Formats: sequence, structure tokens, C-alpha cells
Amino acid sequence: MAKWVYTFGDKEAEGSASMKDLLGGKGANLAEMSNLGLAVPPGFTITTEVCDNYYNNNKEYPSELSNQVLSAIKHIEIITGSEFGNKSNPLLVSVRSGAKASMPGMMDTVLNLGLNDETVEGLASSSENDKFAWDSYRRFIQMYGDVVMGIPHYKFEKFLEDMKLSKGVENDSGLDSSDLKRLVKEYKELVKIETKENFPQKPIEQLWGAIGSVFNSWMNQRAITYRKINNIPMSWGTAVNVQAMVFGNMGETSATGVAFTRNPSNGEKSFFGEFLINAQGEDVVAGIRTPQNLTRADRVKEGSEQLSMEEIMPDVFEELVGIYQKLEEHYKDMQDIEFTVQRGKLWMLQTRNGKRTGRAAIKIAVDMVLEGLITKEEALVRIDPTSLDQLLHPMINPDSNLEIIANGLPASPGAASGAIIFTADEAESEKSKGKKVILVREETSPEDIHGMHAAEGILTSRGGMTSHAAVVARGMGTPCVSGVSSIRINLEEKYFTVGEKNYKEGEFITLDGSKGQVILGEAPMIKPELNSDFIKIINWSDEFRKLNVRTNAETPADAKIACEFGAEGIGLCRTEHMFFEADRIINVRQMILAEDESGRKSALSKLLPVQKNDFKEIFKIMKGLPVTIRLLDPPLHEFLPNKDNEIEEISKISGVDKNKLKRRSESLKEVNPMLGHRGCRLGISYPEIYEMQARAIFEAAIEISKETGENICPEVMIPLIATKDEFNLLKEKIDEVAKKIMQESNSSLDYLVGTMIELPRAALCADEVAINADFFSFGTNDLTQTALGISRDDSASFLDDYLNNEIFSVDPFVSIDQKGVGKLVKIGHDLGRKSNSKLKVGICGEHGGDPESINFFNDVGLDYVSASPYRVPVARLAAAQAEINLKKIK
Amino acid sequence: MAKWVYTFGDKEAEGSASMKDLLGGKGANLAEMSNLGLAVPPGFTITTEVCDNYYNNNKEYPSELSNQVLSAIKHIEIITGSEFGNKSNPLLVSVRSGAKASMPGMMDTVLNLGLNDETVEGLASSSENDKFAWDSYRRFIQMYGDVVMGIPHYKFEKFLEDMKLSKGVENDSGLDSSDLKRLVKEYKELVKIETKENFPQKPIEQLWGAIGSVFNSWMNQRAITYRKINNIPMSWGTAVNVQAMVFGNMGETSATGVAFTRNPSNGEKSFFGEFLINAQGEDVVAGIRTPQNLTRADRVKEGSEQLSMEEIMPDVFEELVGIYQKLEEHYKDMQDIEFTVQRGKLWMLQTRNGKRTGRAAIKIAVDMVLEGLITKEEALVRIDPTSLDQLLHPMINPDSNLEIIANGLPASPGAASGAIIFTADEAESEKSKGKKVILVREETSPEDIHGMHAAEGILTSRGGMTSHAAVVARGMGTPCVSGVSSIRINLEEKYFTVGEKNYKEGEFITLDGSKGQVILGEAPMIKPELNSDFIKIINWSDEFRKLNVRTNAETPADAKIACEFGAEGIGLCRTEHMFFEADRIINVRQMILAEDESGRKSALSKLLPVQKNDFKEIFKIMKGLPVTIRLLDPPLHEFLPNKDNEIEEISKISGVDKNKLKRRSESLKEVNPMLGHRGCRLGISYPEIYEMQARAIFEAAIEISKETGENICPEVMIPLIATKDEFNLLKEKIDEVAKKIMQESNSSLDYLVGTMIELPRAALCADEVAINADFFSFGTNDLTQTALGISRDDSASFLDDYLNNEIFSVDPFVSIDQKGVGKLVKIGHDLGRKSNSKLKVGICGEHGGDPESINFFNDVGLDYVSASPYRVPVARLAAAQAEINLKKIK
Repeated sequence: MAKWVYTFGDKEAEGSASMKDLLGGKGANLAEMSNLGLAVPPGFTITTEVCDNYYNNNKEYPSELSNQVLSAIKHIEIITGSEFGNKSNPLLVSVRSGAKASMPGMMDTVLNLGLNDETVEGLASSSENDKFAWDSYRRFIQMYGDVVMGIPHYKFEKFLEDMKLSKGVENDSGLDSSDLKRLVKEYKELVKIETKENFPQKPIEQLWGAIGSVFNSWMNQRAITYRKINNIPMSWGTAVNVQAMVFGNMGETSATGVAFTRNPSNGEKSFFGEFLINAQGEDVVAGIRTPQNLTRADRVKEGSEQLSMEEIMPDVFEELVGIYQKLEEHYKDMQDIEFTVQRGKLWMLQTRNGKRTGRAAIKIAVDMVLEGLITKEEALVRIDPTSLDQLLHPMINPDSNLEIIANGLPASPGAASGAIIFTADEAESEKSKGKKVILVREETSPEDIHGMHAAEGILTSRGGMTSHAAVVARGMGTPCVSGVSSIRINLEEKYFTVGEKNYKEGEFITLDGSKGQVILGEAPMIKPELNSDFIKIINWSDEFRKLNVRTNAETPADAKIACEFGAEGIGLCRTEHMFFEADRIINVRQMILAEDESGRKSALSKLLPVQKNDFKEIFKIMKGLPVTIRLLDPPLHEFLPNKDNEIEEISKISGVDKNKLKRRSESLKEVNPMLGHRGCRLGISYPEIYEMQARAIFEAAIEISKETGENICPEVMIPLIATKDEFNLLKEKIDEVAKKIMQESNSSLDYLVGTMIELPRAALCADEVAINADFFSFGTNDLTQTALGISRDDSASFLDDYLNNEIFSVDPFVSIDQKGVGKLVKIGHDLGRKSNSKLKVGICGEHGGDPESINFFNDVGLDYVSASPYRVPVARLAAAQAEINLKKIK
Repeated sequence: MAKWVYTFGDKEAEGSASMKDLLGGKGANLAEMSNLGLAVPPGFTITTEVCDNYYNNNKEYPSELSNQVLSAIKHIEIITGSEFGNKSNPLLVSVRSGAKASMPGMMDTVLNLGLNDETVEGLASSSENDKFAWDSYRRFIQMYGDVVMGIPHYKFEKFLEDMKLSKGVENDSGLDSSDLKRLVKEYKELVKIETKENFPQKPIEQLWGAIGSVFNSWMNQRAITYRKINNIPMSWGTAVNVQAMVFGNMGETSATGVAFTRNPSNGEKSFFGEFLINAQGEDVVAGIRTPQNLTRADRVKEGSEQLSMEEIMPDVFEELVGIYQKLEEHYKDMQDIEFTVQRGKLWMLQTRNGKRTGRAAIKIAVDMVLEGLITKEEALVRIDPTSLDQLLHPMINPDSNLEIIANGLPASPGAASGAIIFTADEAESEKSKGKKVILVREETSPEDIHGMHAAEGILTSRGGMTSHAAVVARGMGTPCVSGVSSIRINLEEKYFTVGEKNYKEGEFITLDGSKGQVILGEAPMIKPELNSDFIKIINWSDEFRKLNVRTNAETPADAKIACEFGAEGIGLCRTEHMFFEADRIINVRQMILAEDESGRKSALSKLLPVQKNDFKEIFKIMKGLPVTIRLLDPPLHEFLPNKDNEIEEISKISGVDKNKLKRRSESLKEVNPMLGHRGCRLGISYPEIYEMQARAIFEAAIEISKETGENICPEVMIPLIATKDEFNLLKEKIDEVAKKIMQESNSSLDYLVGTMIELPRAALCADEVAINADFFSFGTNDLTQTALGISRDDSASFLDDYLNNEIFSVDPFVSIDQKGVGKLVKIGHDLGRKSNSKLKVGICGEHGGDPESINFFNDVGLDYVSASPYRVPVARLAAAQAEINLKKIK
């Protein structure tokens, strides 16, 4: 018989941490903590397989499930000594989702389940707290009514607000037990009116309602959006965790909190967390009350007046410290834990590997290696390479004069500027217009995810370091300042106030998420200093990786940055960017407008010295490292103006007749320029262009070799090759130029001639092309366009439909389509090497900076990837991870 | 030691007809005729390998060549009893090119070589004809001076014209031997002035000059153009044939002629040819004098007053008849022969398989099968399938009232209309502007090839059925009327005159090349009747072919024609063409302009009945044969107007706001529409469109099944699939529609759902796609565009550069690129069948009508090709040839 349910509690469990696929992250870790002997409220996990089964069978459960759940309930009753529906000692449970990957707040939760008109009295007497019992029942009806029965939250809130108004109290806690009893009555009437049914009284019926609701919430819109953003497959499904309730809200000796075993923001090795006295867990996460620090040190540092747990509950705190150390040692990673103290007794509710910023991830990984907790390989594979990006991007210039308008918590590091915007929807729509926005909210909720994703930064007036806004922003690598209590938001009139001053929608502000500052206007940014942990990780990467990492750069500035980041050469230097610069575009246009070869040659002769200087500068910076220069690629019409006013202007400047300019521009227009007269086709139609470029490259190389004593060996790359004959023809011409220049200058010259492989045919016939080629460089951008038949410029109109329908799990221009485009890369590589074993093979599409893609390229056996300058460290780490993973498999 | 030279003559030879690659066509057949015991002037052939060697070694000859040529000369001297440079009995030779494939007139020839100031006297005495000897010497200097020494022809002609003027004679033959002696002197002075050298007197020196000149002419512009047009590889090279001269111009008992063993124009089994008394061979081919008939029957038929050879030289004629019968029996094919009669003695100078019209090819092949000369297989592989095209295309409606302005020879059959044009260059330039032209010339020469290629038809005022114009036109399948002696051309003022009337450049005329008529204006054309030979060939094809042949058709008219031509179904019925028709484009536009799904659905509901009727009509015509219907493919912007005036007009008609129309049209514009939001991507973004189309197809199928009792099984084809998920998603929707309709109509329905394979990714992942697909149809047009990265709409700008540089041997959109695109077809087919052995696989790109491509598809193992209606017979024959060839290899 299939096993659908796994129990845990009382220091043992049927599951373990290794069963995340089946039990979800939460369930697996509850089992593991039980096995470790920690105090975990007993419970059971309904597996993710049930979820899968549920969606594949018209939302019906497997037939054995019902009995397995019943006996698991029995298991809890035995451990707790309480009983479902028992009037004197009722069992109350929580019902929570728990997928393989953490999806905080995205799915449904029901607490206090098991309460009804009878058991509420039992709870009152067993807790000796009437008010607590009726408040729990009130909360349960509200939550269950909303989540399971679909009655809008605000309708319950209205009764609550009316009650507080009529009693003249401000907080919920001001209500007494008779008020709460009346509220329960009103809530039940509301349920009756809204659903035409009575609020369910049988605990087992309540339980099935809640289980169904959790499974259904797997497919709600915000869960779908979250999965899309985080590349979580729908097929994983969620587990359901049913667990005996413990109460942090049973008075002043009760509490609830969350903690990180190390600082998730900067990675420092210090216990870090927050708690609330007399509260339920959701109160901390939701950020409704600003919570207290766990440690005294943190309280002092933040200047908080509320005492820390270390001070209020020293015994419990000491026990918690012992547990966190045990957990970190056991999991060998920083843990994010949740706990509840019920009348002085500490219960563990969750542990998981904690989310952290890129900076923290690096520090923690480095520290753990130095502490001997993990190996370098383990440290390296643990860091998300894209998170390095956060550390490489600009921060606010510390020397600048800033107008700081408010201070809050440094919830997610980094700096960002943007226009003030108050709703998630508007944030998304402004972003889609290309605008930078800062999302400003009292607090955020899962409904705001799309807006948070669209914003450059997030600012909240409430909530702590572990509030929804803070957790999500850190995960996204988006700067966030939370709990800025000095601001007041006026949503209707779209401004916020600090003191006397108003700040309107659309005004620019800057957030410093590392310091918790809100700054007026667009603050000046500078390049960050690379810290020593970062450098250690990157250098360790070099010990393991096989792939070389080059960069795509054509300006001296980019080349310099890339060198600082450890680029081992230039994999793609596009020459057309040089053509666009103001001082030469006129000559480029003259060349294009020339009537014949001699006219073109005369214009090209003016371009020769400038191109040569471009190359000389780059060769100087690269100090003998390989530099791959791609000959002219884009269709010529890209260099000509289109619009009438541009044409007129250019006609004036260049002296070329307006109509001639227009005619030529028209005649060069193409229906599908991507598949048009470009790349090597230009070199074949106008050999003099490539000859000029080859001359500029070779003369520059010879001159810089002489000047610096470095041996400069330029790599000339021909774009858009489809057939061996194109390549051979052009290579022959380039060789002739080289020969001529060597004779003219009486110098020798090392150089390579190779080709982009960016058309399917080139990959499929790579054995032929490779015979005379020194190197291949896969142009996976164009290869993706042609293999999939998708224009990058036009794909926006249907890409969303493709992601929503899960036809693509990720934009194929971001991460390489391994099955299709990747197959061409593999075929091209294998055929190329087969006929030319000395062939160098790399990749210079934008996939060269994408970790998933780099992993694939490493598996294929390429020699190098070439990435944009800021992506070079990312690529170095990803290359190391790829090789470590590959060895593991072997 | 390598053998570079092969001798022949005196009824034996070192070579044979099987050695065409090495000896060229002419050399191999001269050897074969020698071996057959025919009288062939002795000579030798320098092999094509020497040509190859020559171009690979800086135009130097292999070292052994010189001695081998000397001993081959000795061989001729022994047989002829004459001697190179011998004053009394000089050996004279011709030096001619001869490639593997016939390239008539494209390369250089030198005749009468061996004459000099001394040997001319020997020729005079041995021929007993002073005038003949000096005329030969005069011709030799002129030809050698032009061809070998590079002195323009017209400079010699000037002296000749002056001489005739001063002597008051009209023809060359009016000059006496002293005139000719003076002319020789003037010619030699001209050579001295032009080249600063004396005209070479040593025969061996003359010989090497002529050999070099022939080899060099392999790379002259017109040879290159000819090879390009006829897909002859440069690497084949030419051989050089050196052969003892025989003279057809030694007086009235001498003659020269060409003949076909059957009629090359209509294929009739009758000896057919022309000759000229007292002339050299080139005179017949050049068409300068209108020649006489060989047979009395032909002379009578044509009403010629010049006696036939049968009448003038009955003995020689009888010998010739014996030879032609022997040759045809030996070669088992219609022969094109050249002969010379020197003082009553018949010499054979050439035989080769004769060029013929498509009609003649079919008749000859069928007749030879019936005569028992060849098998059906031999007959089938002998017919160029594309030549069938000629027979399928319109001819002049015989019932129409024509204004015939002149009559000439029916030199190449078929009818064509176009504007009068007088030069090849202008013909080409007009054609490139999309205009139809008729090239009108006194006579044509190899320099006119490009213009003949550009013209719809060719009209010459001189020359016979074997003139340059006639031979080339038949080869091209272009209608030609030659020898229209009634017209006078005024080249300077650009008109021609017939009687009193002038016809100017640009005026339209029609040629009937089957009847030899020149007609004023554009004559009405009709579909030709298919003759019984044609039908025999096509039916024989069906006995051998494995490939099914379907057609691409979406109109009832096309479907009907295709059925008449034997189409076995429709392989591609494009539904968008139906969208464009006037009565529905408004609804299509409404659909596109709809703001939401419900707006689209309402517009689609209006399109449903019209689409359904379209399908019903087609199903009716196809009578249960398979019909593959492709769902909407082009991007939606193709249906919207672009230009301001169009927009305004449509806004008026449709009532849609002008600006809205413009905005929507703008917003749908794409940078690369070929790679844009089209094909199945439309079905994924707007499922309701494909749902409507599926409904129209299925309802039509059910209704026609009921109406006719035929089981209609429509094949629904999804375009532009790249991934299995796209296909599965859409197939599921189509299946749902089918299910719904079956329920609604309470009928059963057979149908297939398959996909185009037209993107590289689909081919590479065909195993995944095939799992749920019933069929694949390769869309090799788009597959060529994406695999090669070449937009069909834009390739014109560089295609010529690619053909000239021999990067492409043929436009890849005309004949499939087997190595690249073909590899994808093979991969797609093999992977598809591997995962789904029942998969039907076909091809519906335009390559489906190209014989070379069909051969490839047959080898790959496809089930069917689909071609345009007129190409269906071509495809049937090509499919048979493919299978016959495949079996031969096996």
C-alpha cells in the first residue's frame, strides 16, 4: 500500500531531511529536528505525491489517504494526551503548506484548527485563560472563513473594528472574553449569511477543508507568479503539514520568534533574530508589530528600548543558543529557525537553510571553510553565482552630500534610485515603460510580488528585518529599507510625509539598503570595493574550474574593468561599435554611400587609422592576453539614418544629397535584417571592408608588440559563417593582408583566424568549417534566434504566453535552451574537434555569463566562455561549480 | 609516368566514350567513333587533368606534357602523311576545347593552325587552289590574332571590309587570291603594330599558343556565366582536342553540316539536319548563311528552293545515313553529329547525345522503348524532369484571332509574349525590373547568353534550326523563332521593320516557337493538351517511384489542376490565403483589432462559415484523398494595411477609427517578421483562432463525408513548432474541438494532427515532437531560412556574389542545401520515426517540385513530396528517377 503520510514528534520521525522531494522542505526538516531529539510539536506530513495525484485526478485524493490521516491524528493524540473534539482537553492543530523549495507566504495556512463551540470551553479551562481561548476561536473562524470558505478578510475585520469602536479600545488586546464571545457569534452569523452553511463544528471536517485549501493554493495566482520568477516547476507540488498547536500567545511567559544562526544580511557570525512576547508566529513574519531583538548586543546596537530575549527569558535564550549551534553543526549551513515559547517551554517549529544576501553568502561560506565546517568545494557550490552581481554593482559614493530624509532598517543591501510609486500594479506598469521606480508601502504582502520584482528598491514604513518585504527583497537582490516608522503614507493622494514635508509620486528617491537610509533625489553611485571574502571565493574558483573566462568588451573602459575582475582575454570585441562613434560615423556613411569599390576604398582609408588606434588601445590594456576581434557584422543600413529629420541633418553635415541618402537608405532596408546582408556576407560582397579591418588589426598588433615587447597574437573572427567556402574565401583574403603587412613592416606576426558558429548550418557542418579554422566561438544569441526561429527583438509579444504555458521554463535568451540550441553547440563542438583536434572552442553569446548555461558549456567541453565585464566573476564561480558538479557525477 | 595525351584516328583510339571525365565529351566521342571504324580525322586529346593541373600550378603545364604532345603530333603526321611546317605537304590542325558537359561556343577554337608564309604555298599546291589556301591563311591569322594574341576582331574586319569596298565586291568570296595575299600582308602588319611582335611562323609555337588559349578560355566570363546557369562545376576543367584539318570549303564537292538522328524539336524519328556547300563548320553553327536541308522531305516541307544533300550528294548522303543509324544504335540515344565532306570524302568530326526539347525528349524516349532500344528505366532517367514544365505551360489559344507579322523557323517550341528589346544587356536590365521581354537580334552569339536567359523568347532574323540562337534556346526551354528573314533591324533607332511597318522597342509581340510565328501584341494563351507520350512517361514513372506526390493548393482551381496532373492528395493547404479574400478580410481585421478574447471570438464566428465552405469545396474536389490543412501561419500585421491611404480607406469601409487602425498596425510591426509572432505562436496567444479553424475543418469533413459517402480524414497541420510542449498543448485543444463536434453532430470523425518541421530545433528534437504527432511535413523554405540564416526576401542583395564565388552552386531556395538543411531533414526524419514508427513524413516546401531535391528526399526515406500543381508531373518523374538511381547504387 502506498504511504502518503509521514509522522514526526516525540524525538523520532518516519522521515528525514533527505526526503525534501517527498515531504517538502518544512516537513523534512521537522522530521530531522525530531530525529535530532529537539522538542518539536508532534504532527505529520501529507506528501507532495498526494498533490501531484490530486491534480492529475480531478482533485480527488488517493483512496488510502483518509485512513492514513486518521491514524496519524491518533499518533498526535497519543503524544499530546489530547484528543480531537475532546471537550476538556481538545487537540488543536496547524495546517501548513511546504514545498520542496521555500515559497514564503505564497500558499494557505490555517491555525487553531480543532476549535468549536464545545472545545473552546475545554481550551479555556485547560489554559485557565478564557480570553485566550475565545480569542483563538475568533481568530480560527476568521482565518478558516477566509482561507477555506472564501469569505473576504475585510468582512470579518469590519466586525472587529466595530467592536473595538463600541468598546472604545484601540488594540485587539483591549477586548475582554465576553466581547470575544460576541464576536464569535457575529462571525458565525457572517459565515451563515455568506455561505448559507453553518461554520463546521467537527474537527475532522475542518481538517479536510484545510488540507484541500492548502493543495488548491498551489495553483493560486501568486504561487504561480512566484514559481515563474524563481523557476520552480509546477510538477513539484506542495506537501501539507499538520502539527499540534503550541501557543506563543498564552501570556507574558509565552513568545514566538524567528532567528538566523548568522547574520543573513552581512554574514557575520552572530546569532540574530527577533521575537514577540505573547504573540502567534504569523505576527512576526507579517511585520504588524515591530518585534524585539533576541540578543542584548543587537538591542544596544539598534538603540531599541524593548528588552531582548537574552534579558527577559535568559533560560529559554540559553536553550535556544544551544539548539541553534547544534542545528548549524548538523546542517553545516546557516539556519533560519522558527520557535514558540509556550509558558516557558521552548518548541521548535521550523529550520531551513536561511536565505541570505550575496555578501552574506560569501562571508558565511568563507568563514565556514576557515572554521573547518565545510570544504572549499562545498563553499563554492553553495553560492548562487548571480548573487555576486549584487556586490559588483554601484553603491552610493560615500563622499557625496546626501539629503537623508528618513532612516529605517537595512533590510536588503545595495543602493538604488527611482521614482516613488505606491502600488505594485503601478510599479509594474511604469517598469514596463522603462522607468525606474521605488515601491513605497506600509508593509508588503505576497500580492505585491510582481511590483517588488519590478521595483529598483523597496521601502516599507512597518515591519522588521524578517518581514515579508525584507525576506523577499533579499531573495531578489533588491535593496530594501524596512520599518521606516517616520513616514506616513497617503495612498489616496499619492504622497508620503516625513515630519512636515510631503514627497509625491514620481519624485526621485534613493535607498541605501546597507545602511537603512532613504535619500532625496538620485544619489551619485560608485564602483564598490571588492572585499577579501569575495576575492577568496573567486580565487578558490580558479583552483577548480577548467573553463577559461574571457570578456565581451570593445571599449578601453570595459576592457579595464574586465581585467580587474580577472578576465583572461577578450572573447568578443565588436568592431561595429567603433563605427558608430561620432568622429567616424561620417566616414562609415561615405563608405556605404560610395557608388563603387574605389569610392568605398577611399572612405575606408580614412577609417583605417581610427580603427587601428582602437585596437592599439585594447591590445595595450590586455597585455598580451588573447583578443578576439569580430569583423563587421551588422547590415549596413544600421549605420544610415531612417527618419526624415535625421536624413536632413546628416545630409547637411556630410554634404551628401538628401534624396540620395534617402534612396540608399531605402534600398538597403530589409524585411528580416537578422537574416539579411550582414556578417561575412558583407565581407564577401565588399571585400575591401574586411581587408581594411584586417589591416587595422595586424598593423596595431605589430606596433604594440614592438612598443611593449609583449607578443600580441590577435584572433580575427568572421561572423555569420554558414558554409566552409565562405570561411575559406575570407580567411584567404585575411591571410593575404597579413602577408602583405609582414612584408611591408618587415616583421613577423602571430595571428589566428576563426569563426563565429551562430547559424545551425555552421554547427551541422562544423567538421568542414573547422579544417582551416583556428577557433570557433559559438554565438548563442543568433544561434538561439535561428534554431528556434525567434527574433529577440520581437519575442516580447509572446514570451509571456510561453512562460505562462510552461513551454519555456525560462527565457531562452537568458539561459541556453540545452535540448535544442545546446544540441547544436554540442554537435558543432564535437564535429569541429573531430576534424581539427587543435581547434579552440569558446562561446561569446550572452549565455556566457549565465551559470546554468556555463554548467552546460563545461559539460560539452568548451575551452572558454566570454561574458560581459561585470559577469566575469559570476562566470568564474559558475565555471568552478560546473566542474565540481561534473566530477561528482563522474 | 602520368599520361596526359590520348590519340585517336585511323579506326582506333587510346580513349573511349566512357572516359568523358578525362577526355571531355568531344574527345571521348572522337575516340569512340574511331573505335567504331568511322572516318575521323586523326588527332589527340590533352586531358582535363592538365587543365586542373594548369590552374593549380600558376598556369604551368606538367613537365611531361611537351614530349607527349610532340609524339602525338608525330602520330597524326604518320596517319595523314603530312608534316607540321612541311613546305609541300603541311599538316594543318584544329585546336578545340571539350569539357565533360557540352558548353557550345563558350570557349576558344583555332582552325587552320600550321599555316605560315611557307606552308600556305604547300597548301595551295596540294589543294591545287591558290585562293582557298590564302583565304585559309587569312582566316587563320584573323582567328589566331583575335583568340590567342588578343587583337580585337573588328580591326581585322576593317581591312576585310576596306578590301571588299575597294574591289567593289559584296561577299568575301568575291576576293581573288592576290587580294587575299594583300590582306594577309595587312593582317601581319596589324599584328606587328598591336603586339610589337611578328605573327608566329613556327607551327609548334602556334600550337602551344592555341592550347594555352583554350585552357585560359575555361575561365573567361561567358564560360563562367554558362557554368553558373547550367550548374557545371569549375573543377571539371576542359580538355583540348588537336585534330588534323579537313576542309568543307575546298569547292563545290566539299561541304560541312550538322545533323540530328531524330528531330530535336518534336522528337519525330526522321533524320534531320542542315549543311552548306563549300563552307567551314563554324559557318553553319554561326548562322551567317541560311543553310540547306539534308533530306529532300524536309526541303519540300519547308518550301526551300535550295536542293537538299540527298539530292546533290546522294552517295555521301547514303553513307551518312548508314553512319547515323550505326551511331544511334551504338549510343542508344539520339545523336547530334557534325561532319565535313572534303572533295567528296565524308569525315566525322563529332557525335554527342543531342540536346532536345522536353517534348522531343519524351517522344524519343517513348519511341525507343517501343523500338526495344532501351528499357523503361533507361527512358525515364533520360528525361530532364524540369523540361516537362515546357509542355505544361500555356500555349497560344488556337481559336484566337492573331495578327501574324512575320514567319520564321520553329526553332524552340512554346509561346511567349514580351516587349521588343534589341540588346542582351537591356534584356537583362528590363528583366531585373520585372518586365517581360523578347530579345530580337540578327543572330545571337555566346556574348548574348545573359540576355537570352533573361528573355521570355528569342527572335532572330538570320540563322537556321541549328544556329546558336536555336540550340541555346531549346536548351533553356525558351521559345525561339529563328531566320525570320523578312525583318530588318535598325539597332540605332531601336525598331525593326517588316515591309512598310515599324515595330519599336517596348512594343509587345508574341512568339510561337512551335510554329515559327511572330505575332503582334500579347496573344491569349490556353492550357496545353497532354499528349499520349507525356502520359506514358508519367504513368511509367508511377511503376517505379516509391514517393507519393501531393500538391500545394488552396483554391478549388489549383486543386482541380493538380488532380488532373495526378496529385495523390494535398500536402499543403494554406488557410491564410482564404483570409485575404475580399469578402472576409474585413472580418479578419475585426478579429485582429478586437480588444479582447470575446471581441476576437465574435469576429471569428463570422469567419467560421466561410472557412468551412472553403474546406468543403476542397474536400469535395479531392474525393477522399488526403488533405493537409495548415492552421494560420503569417503574423497578424500582414492582414492590416500599412500605407496612410490604405488605412484611411479601410477605416471608412470597416468603421474602425483611423488612428486605432494605425496604432494597432504599428504595434504589430516586427523587426524580423519571419522570426516573429506567427505560426503556432498565434495559436498559443490566441487559442480561439485555431479553435475556429479546427471547427471549420472538422465540420466540413463531417458534412462532406455524409454528402458524398467518402471517408474524409482531414490532416490538421500546426506550423512553426519548435518544442514538443507547443505541439502537445495545441494538439490537445484540437482534440477537444474534435470531441465536441463529434458529440454535437453525433458523428464519428477520422482526423490526423501533425506538424510542420521548419525550424532547426524541431528537427533536432523531432523524437520528442513525434510522440504525439501523426505526421511531419518538412517546411524546407523556412528551414532553409533559419538553418542558413538567410531571409528569402532579402537574399537577392548577395545571392549573386555567392553564386559568382561558387559558395552556392545553386540558389538554396531552388534546390535544397543537402549538406546543411538536408542534414536537418534527415535528422528530423530519423528521430521522428525512431520514437513513432507510424509517423507519416513528407515535405511541402517548394523543394518538393525540384528534381535534385526529390532525389534527396527519396534517399532519406520520406513518404511523400508536395509540389505546386504544375510541378506534380515533374515530381512524379523525378521520384521515379530517384528510386531507379537508388536501386542502381544498391
